[in-house]
Order: sequence, then structure tokens, then C-alpha cells
Amino acid sequence: MMRNLVLGLEVVTADGTVLSMMNRMLKNNAGFDLKQLFIGSEGTLGVVTRAVLKLEPRLPFRQTALVALNGFEKLPRLLNRLKQDLGAGLSSFEVMWGDYYQAVTTGNKPPLARDYPFYLLVECENRDENAARFITVMEQVFDAGLIVDAVVAKSGAERAALWAIRDNFDPVLAKKPVYLYDVSLPIKDMATYVDQVKARLKQDFPAAQCLVFGHVGDGNLHLFVIPGGTEAPTTRHLSDLAVYHPLRAFSGSVSAEHGIGREKKDWLHYSRSAAEIALMRLLETTMDPKNILNPGVVIDV
Amino acid sequence: MMRNLVLGLEVVTADGTVLSMMNRMLKNNAGFDLKQLFIGSEGTLGVVTRAVLKLEPRLPFRQTALVALNGFEKLPRLLNRLKQDLGAGLSSFEVMWGDYYQAVTTGNKPPLARDYPFYLLVECENRDENAARFITVMEQVFDAGLIVDAVVAKSGAERAALWAIRDNFDPVLAKKPVYLYDVSLPIKDMATYVDQVKARLKQDFPAAQCLVFGHVGDGNLHLFVIPGGTEAPTTRHLSDLAVYHPLRAFSGSVSAEHGIGREKKDWLHYSRSAAEIALMRLLETTMDPKNILNPGVVIDV
Repeated sequence: MMRNLVLGLEVVTADGTVLSMMNRMLKNNAGFDLKQLFIGSEGTLGVVTRAVLKLEPRLPFRQTALVALNGFEKLPRLLNRLKQDLGAGLSSFEVMWGDYYQAVTTGNKPPLARDYPFYLLVECENRDENAARFITVMEQVFDAGLIVDAVVAKSGAERAALWAIRDNFDPVLAKKPVYLYDVSLPIKDMATYVDQVKARLKQDFPAAQCLVFGHVGDGNLHLFVIPGGTEAPTTRHLSDLAVYHPLRAFSGSVSAEHGIGREKKDWLHYSRSAAEIALMRLLETTMDPKNILNPGVVIDV
Repeated sequence: MMRNLVLGLEVVTADGTVLSMMNRMLKNNAGFDLKQLFIGSEGTLGVVTRAVLKLEPRLPFRQTALVALNGFEKLPRLLNRLKQDLGAGLSSFEVMWGDYYQAVTTGNKPPLARDYPFYLLVECENRDENAARFITVMEQVFDAGLIVDAVVAKSGAERAALWAIRDNFDPVLAKKPVYLYDVSLPIKDMATYVDQVKARLKQDFPAAQCLVFGHVGDGNLHLFVIPGGTEAPTTRHLSDLAVYHPLRAFSGSVSAEHGIGREKKDWLHYSRSAAEIALMRLLETTMDPKNILNPGVVIDV
């Protein structure tokens, strides 16, 4: 998480004060850790002008695999198993729903067959080259029934080809109009949630598709919603009924990564309580009484 | 850091509102991350009544060594080297100044000779038993001249004996009166800072001792100041002149771990700017206008 890498900030507040919080220590419990208030506040409480970041050396070796699963319920067990067996080096755990994989591999010869329900891109960073260990771990999770197919990259080119499946979603974006969402919810509920979104979409938009991938190790999903048909729906219709409404039952977040901005303001109350929003508003009006800092973003005051 | 393990909180605020922020997701950027405001605020902004914590499984194997260094300047290089060679499993990197080691090993047969200037307790957690690798790394840092002596625990009892040196500072506490401090500053400045504290102490208290150990991997030090002599100095004299004053030149913190409470309020401005303290006061008076939450703690309003 980026927040955990921010040691210090300099922020200019609404009254022009240069608030220097350029801490360089890992531990500093001298009073409130004020920088936390500004991280993720989207410029509404102050303007960040400098930052002190904690850096870690990049590990030189990496192993990458694309694996297939025959059920989402295997995923949390697989994540725990890989965390245990690959340790802190596990750096990517990217799930793709089967229909996403099908949509992005059209016209190519894909590395794995296209009819599995779930695919997962696994990557591990290491300080030494231990490809053998990585392959052994993949064999063990296969033998344990957690995965049903796998391909391990044997070169940088093969690694890039596996990542292209996750990264290159141009074929999905070509299906206009397409609506992008960025939600988070507990991993165990993800498959049920996506099924509910798809069911609700089908009800209102018979030609709709919902293609999903996610950084499941971090608990979040990206949804590409393609209503299809001839008439474009309102964003509100899609967002409210199909995507965000079912999220409420799982106490999910309408924004895992990208923030609220202006677009998601109407749904902030789906993920934050009235008391939370009231405190956000109190902080905002206290720290920016004239509402000059990024007005209209996150919450209206 | 504990902060990084807190996913959600429930807090009761000054007006009796139950503020539920019981988030269970790793990523949630739906508006301000309000729980950050309460973490480390010492009960002055609200009363924490529930928490959601992220847990990690404890790794089953650990290797422990006590090593000696002939100069503090080796320490940052040793830390980087061990991070690289032992990876994320490096779980303890605890430095002890030579006089601390001497004070706690009186009357015992210590595992290493008592005349080195610096000692370091290194511990590594692993998912598999690879004691051979740990020993190899210790041999390599010895060959590289980063350490001058080492002992590796070969059993749980030996491991406990090594930890007892760091943990059992009863012989130090017996030298009454003793004053404890908890500061942080950049690692590269630590030896210079401790020398300055000792020099200043000697000037005013000829019989003074300053015994130091620290969680150097986290950037903080614990100082035991024993003024000696027949007349006890004022805490203010010790704190202000000897311990906190020299910290200012290194932009250090008067409280790395334990917070400000009532005792350190007078020195908060050594580690936080006037603008920071003004914002702390603004938050405090806004969120607790009647000053009923832990009044007199952290800052006076």
C-alpha cells in the first residue's frame, strides 16, 4: 500500500500555511500522525508539495505462472498456501474470470485453454534464482487439487506474454460503450458478488457482459461492464442497480483504489456510514472553511 | 508497524456518536481514511471500542545470532546486507551499545567478550528450517568485515539466553534513579547523537552513565540515563539539556513508540513544527469541543 511507504509530507493548507511534516523516521509517535489525514484526501484538505518515501530495493529475480482454477472457492486456500510456501516474495496474485480471459485472448493462441472458469497470474520476486522451487510449489498446489492447469514462464518474453493477458484489455475497451468499476470486498464473497452483478445486468440488458479481473491479494476487483444492445443505459442505472447495490450486502467499497472524485460522490454512502461522512464534512469545513481546495470532490459541503 | 495492521476501528466520539469504521478490506479509498486520525491519538479524539486487525501466520522456524561490531558505521551496511540476503524474514535487528552489554552481563559468562563497542541481536523467521543458510550469511558478513565476532543459537535455550541480554535490563534499572527515554532519529546519526548525550551528561553529572539499546531496524533507541552522584537531577534538566536538546539537530522524535502522554508534552515542539501543533490543536478542539476526552494529554487546549 502506498500509504505505508509515505514517511513524510509537506502540505500547503487552505490559509496558505506551509505545513512541514517531512519526517524521515519509520517510527514517530510524537502527537497525531497528521500526514495520514492528507493521504488519499484528493487535495480537499491541502495541496501536497513534497513527500518523503520509503524505498525498498527491487529483488533481481522473478518467476511467473499463469494457472487455471475450476472454482473460485479454491482461491483463498491457494492464496494462503502460496503466501506460506513462497513467503513475502509473492508479489502478484491477479485473478481473471473466464469470460475476461476469453475476451482478451481472441485471435491469439492462448497459453492455457480458454474454457476454464478462473485464471490466475502468480508472480514471485526473489533475491536468488530459484526457479526449481517455484515449479515445485506449482506442482504441489496442482497435486493438492487447488489448480487444474498451469504454465510457467521460461523467459522474459514468455513472462511478458503472460502479463499481456492481464494488462492488455484493449479488446474489452473496444466493445463500446464500456463502463469501468473499481470495487473491493472480502475475497470469500467475490464470486457470489460477480454472479449477482451479472444476473442483475442480464435482467435489464439481455446482451450485457461483465468482464472481471482483480488484484485479489489486495482484495479488489476491476469490472468492465458492457451493456450491449442499441440503447446506452444511464451510468446511474448501471452503477446504482447493477454494480454498487449488490456490493452493500458485503460491506464492500465503491472505490478500492481510485478514490471518489466527482463521479462516485453519489455512492460514497454505500461504503461509509452517515457518521463517517459527517466527520469527513466536519474535517473538510474546519480545514478549508472557504471551500477553495478541490471543491466538489469527495463530498459536497 | 501496528498502524499498518489496523484495517478497521469503531470509535465513540466526544458527542457520544458510535463511529463505525469496521472496514475489513485491505484497500478502501472511499473518501478519507478516518481511522488513521484515531490511531496514536491517545484517546484524545475518541474512545476506541472495537478493532479489525490484519493477521499474518507466524513462521515456524527462526534463527538467532548475537554479533559484535567494532564501529557503528558498519551498522547501516550490515542492515542492508542482511535485508538483501535474509529477505523479509529478517525480524529483529537490535543494537546494544557496549556499556549496555557490560551492564547487563555482570556476573554471567556472556556469550561474547565484553569489550566490543557494539553488539547486535539478529533474528530471522523462516517457513523452512534453513539454519545452514543463516550461518553462511553470518560467515559472509564476517568475511566482509562488517562484524568481528558472532555466536549463533543452536537450541531454544541458547536463543532464550541471547534474548535475555536484550530483554533483561533489571541490572540497569537497579541503578536508581534511572530515567528512560524512547527516541527516534536517522540510523546514520545515532552514534553521534549518543556521543553528544553522553558528553553533555558528563559535563553536568560526572558520574553519569547512558546505556542504550535500540530497535535499529525500525530507527529507534531506548536510553537509560543514570545520573549517579548523590543529588538527583530534575527530569527537566536531564530531558531538556542532555537527551532532547541534541536530538533537534537530527530532526529526531522525542517519542518513537510510547506517545506523548503528559510527561513529554513540554518537548512535543522539539519534534513537531508550530504549524503541526496548531493543526493538532484545531483537530482536538473541533472534535472534542468540551475537552472531555483524556484532557491534558498530548497537547493542552
